Amino acid sequence: MTILAVGAQAADQPLDRMEITRRDLGAHDVRIEIIYCGICHSDLHQVRSEWAGTLYPCVPGHEIVGRVAAVGGHVTGHKIGDLVGVGCIVDSCQHCPDCDEGLENYCDGMVGTYNGPTPDAPGHTLGGYSQAIVVHERYVLRITHPEEQLAAVAPLLCAGITTYSPLRHWGAGPGRKVGVVGIGGLGHMGVKLAHAMGAHVVAFTTSAGKTQDAKALGADEVVVSRNPEEMAAHAQSFDLILNTVAAPHDLDSFLALLKRDGTMVLVGAPATPHPSPNVFNLIMRRRSLAGSMIGGIPETQEMLDFCAEHGITADIEMIRADEIEQAYARMLKGDVKYRFVMDIATMAG
Amino acid sequence: MTILAVGAQAADQPLDRMEITRRDLGAHDVRIEIIYCGICHSDLHQVRSEWAGTLYPCVPGHEIVGRVAAVGGHVTGHKIGDLVGVGCIVDSCQHCPDCDEGLENYCDGMVGTYNGPTPDAPGHTLGGYSQAIVVHERYVLRITHPEEQLAAVAPLLCAGITTYSPLRHWGAGPGRKVGVVGIGGLGHMGVKLAHAMGAHVVAFTTSAGKTQDAKALGADEVVVSRNPEEMAAHAQSFDLILNTVAAPHDLDSFLALLKRDGTMVLVGAPATPHPSPNVFNLIMRRRSLAGSMIGGIPETQEMLDFCAEHGITADIEMIRADEIEQAYARMLKGDVKYRFVMDIATMAG
Ligand SMILES: [Zn+2]
Ligand SMILES: [Zn+2]
Ligand SMILES: [Zn+2]
Ligand SMILES: [Zn+2]
Repeated sequence: MTILAVGAQAADQPLDRMEITRRDLGAHDVRIEIIYCGICHSDLHQVRSEWAGTLYPCVPGHEIVGRVAAVGGHVTGHKIGDLVGVGCIVDSCQHCPDCDEGLENYCDGMVGTYNGPTPDAPGHTLGGYSQAIVVHERYVLRITHPEEQLAAVAPLLCAGITTYSPLRHWGAGPGRKVGVVGIGGLGHMGVKLAHAMGAHVVAFTTSAGKTQDAKALGADEVVVSRNPEEMAAHAQSFDLILNTVAAPHDLDSFLALLKRDGTMVLVGAPATPHPSPNVFNLIMRRRSLAGSMIGGIPETQEMLDFCAEHGITADIEMIRADEIEQAYARMLKGDVKYRFVMDIATMAG
Repeated sequence: MTILAVGAQAADQPLDRMEITRRDLGAHDVRIEIIYCGICHSDLHQVRSEWAGTLYPCVPGHEIVGRVAAVGGHVTGHKIGDLVGVGCIVDSCQHCPDCDEGLENYCDGMVGTYNGPTPDAPGHTLGGYSQAIVVHERYVLRITHPEEQLAAVAPLLCAGITTYSPLRHWGAGPGRKVGVVGIGGLGHMGVKLAHAMGAHVVAFTTSAGKTQDAKALGADEVVVSRNPEEMAAHAQSFDLILNTVAAPHDLDSFLALLKRDGTMVLVGAPATPHPSPNVFNLIMRRRSLAGSMIGGIPETQEMLDFCAEHGITADIEMIRADEIEQAYARMLKGDVKYRFVMDIATMAG
């Protein structure tokens, strides 16, 4: 099965249209006609080989939504015509403790939706900037949002679950004060989700200009993190801070805002290290600095259902397939509210 | 009440004998004739003004054991003749959420046993290198060990509780694999306590020569942390690592040994920062890097009772009061198994 995709042939070449193949349908496979694919920062890092080990041709994209076109003989959870999604994970070992607990994201054998090892041609996985994908049923999510929201559902598959999982794991909810650092693709979902979970949400931004936007997303308060007085007013008051900023920055000023036993969880890894956090800040109030990566498949389904129930989608800006390079350039400048989504129908144009 | 003590008149002067006064007994006070006082690294840092804000004269010592000599009219929990202990805390606000939960160690108004604010002369607290101390009953611990073990109980008041509290908080016990980094004053207590709690204990040391000693303390396994192969054999296997090393060192090599959801807790703060930990190590397995400081008063009592029940004391080397400078010099070289304890009776000699 040969289809169109958008990707790069090398790190220094722009993304362009190409033909790729998808494997024949296995007994547990679902073939999905992709309708929209969200544009994640990881896509850019991977395709530009800013992380080690990018394999070419590289087709990014792991915020995939579409419609089931065919199912293998043993598939029970999905049927032709269903609206479904695929996130960052398309395979895992399926028998380790992590997989058994539904935390496939932490499985040593986790296979990413792009650049992961696979017996399929060309030997590594190719992502969702493409017309179709074939995925084992375990990694295919049901979408129950109204169909007209489908494009805005796409970013939930990475940005949504990456923020939902730590918010749930560290107990965001009523009576808890939760900070969200960085109001971009991830952060704007973090604010919406923490608000819907019932937490008191404080958004941290470096630009005072984002205050109204952050409140519109659901923040109860907005703090300009460059303002020491505003920061000091929140000292020792947070149960949880979800830090979505991958750029190296001072962690101490946020750690100091945690209560005793509070946790700051990082969901982005910087290309160069953050300044080393002050150990006293951890010791003095038994604080934790933690990390979290995406989320498991069952909790991704739970997140999608939660979002459908609460009417939550991402705030998106739609692009055509041939606008991907401009979208990357704008994303690098933070010039998007808050996620680009590619209309896959434009790929054939 | 004027008594003898050992302390320093300035950062650049050796410790020497001096006279100090203790306050008159208040209604809730306990006067303790000090019999032994353990020698903690913090004592040295404080008295040498290696930390900011040392006030002089400075009398260190916060691993205090002795006998009740007098009690105020409202004291109910202690009586004359009892064997008691005082650790790192001699006062706190007594009405904040931390105090209410018995976590006086995290109270903003916590007053350290030395160098803390007090209305008593000379305006800051003076510690346990002295013949007697007057302490509010709340901060006085009951000792139920046999009296002949009293000297070896002293280090439990700081080294014991500093390791017991995080081991309990992060659930060391049967079925859990617990690492202890650094086999010194703190670490040797960590190994003994984690073993008594029923955990599988792995001691990490930089010197292969400490292997037999660590096993004698209760370690099930000993890893020489300079040996990459020995370290790799324990990758992703620890529920908890208690890191007692305050000197700056590579945290990543230990973080990589944690299971998913594992925690490394630091109980020492380095004078200069550790190399910045790799955020990927946290994110990839939802690991946490945490800190913990001493422990609360109720859990200090719990620790003492636990140790009495399990026959646990510190391994000590007794010194005379006039040997304190030599003891500090040896402590700096790690040349002690594992804690010096001052025999206060030698102070009057
Ligand atoms: Zn992503
Ligand atoms: Zn697995
Ligand atoms: Zn100490
Ligand atoms: Zn208090």
